[in-house]
Amino acid sequence: MSATGSASQAASLLEKVDLSSLTPKYQILAKISASICAGDDNLTSLLSNLSALLWEQLKDINWAGFYLLHQEEQTLYLGPFQGKAACRRIAFGKGVCGTAVAETKTQLVPNVHDFPGHIACDSVTNSEIVIPIFLNDKVVGVLDIDSPEFNRFNPEDAQGLEVVVQILQAQLATLNPLQFAVYDCKALEQALKIN
Amino acid sequence: MSATGSASQAASLLEKVDLSSLTPKYQILAKISASICAGDDNLTSLLSNLSALLWEQLKDINWAGFYLLHQEEQTLYLGPFQGKAACRRIAFGKGVCGTAVAETKTQLVPNVHDFPGHIACDSVTNSEIVIPIFLNDKVVGVLDIDSPEFNRFNPEDAQGLEVVVQILQAQLATLNPLQFAVYDCKALEQALKIN
Repeated sequence: MSATGSASQAASLLEKVDLSSLTPKYQILAKISASICAGDDNLTSLLSNLSALLWEQLKDINWAGFYLLHQEEQTLYLGPFQGKAACRRIAFGKGVCGTAVAETKTQLVPNVHDFPGHIACDSVTNSEIVIPIFLNDKVVGVLDIDSPEFNRFNPEDAQGLEVVVQILQAQLATLNPLQFAVYDCKALEQALKIN
Repeated sequence: MSATGSASQAASLLEKVDLSSLTPKYQILAKISASICAGDDNLTSLLSNLSALLWEQLKDINWAGFYLLHQEEQTLYLGPFQGKAACRRIAFGKGVCGTAVAETKTQLVPNVHDFPGHIACDSVTNSEIVIPIFLNDKVVGVLDIDSPEFNRFNPEDAQGLEVVVQILQAQLATLNPLQFAVYDCKALEQALKIN
């Protein structure tokens, strides 16, 4: 089975987002992201392939990947990524990732050294963008991308990557919630009631 | 929290393997692998950081990562990796990875084009090594590394990487089995009986 889903599955994900205001580069990235996400029913497989895609398509970055929120512990757990080995856990409200979760909004950080409490997983990082991932109106994780350049990410990047995350969210909504179980015991209980 | 565990946790993992017959390069890799695996109680976080380590430390490779076995479906699911987006699922007995699972032994493939039924996730791959991962005497997944060079992996690499997998196995044995639940419904039932 290839890395991508069927054209109709991808089209179905793209119907849920608005590509019209994106730059041509991000319109293409959104379409490839939909192909990567489409029809993949496994959380880890999906996030692993999506991080590989972002790593390949975005220039001047040194890390691209995901952290997943453990709901009870209110702690971000390192998920699939591309780049150097990274911090395993990040507390709610700490660093750029933890702040994105606490504020439930995108963090566009032109200079990480100016960000209060920045967590330096890789010392070459100079700028960063973190986008929260929602499922059923609740943050379940973040997409985190680091760059060795200052000011690497601008509002057009934020807008484009937010659409990529919306596509991911549309696919996550189709997964068996049992897959979030290790990050959310309540979801496990819910799943067991359903089954 | 950093990418590595404590020195005592790493030492405890290293006690379970025999480094004496490894080349100096693999002795070092085994020690760093133990640091990366030590004390990480999350399956995805652990495999993500270990694939990043292998990617950084091994020369002339184009993919390094994991597939996890869905016990009921007898299908390998793509796990965390470094490299280009990859095949999502591999059937038992198919390709180099599926063969490693079916034969429960390391596959050292000097030329993938000569391997019957080779699955070409990335066309640049010319040689490959796949090592099965055991938990409670049962295969639960594989470590898969691809190279664009022919004959990239020799028996010394196999021996060194098998020790890395033994270190990983020692850490996997400490995890809550619930984490394998999406790959093994029987493990989930077991975990629920325990809790």
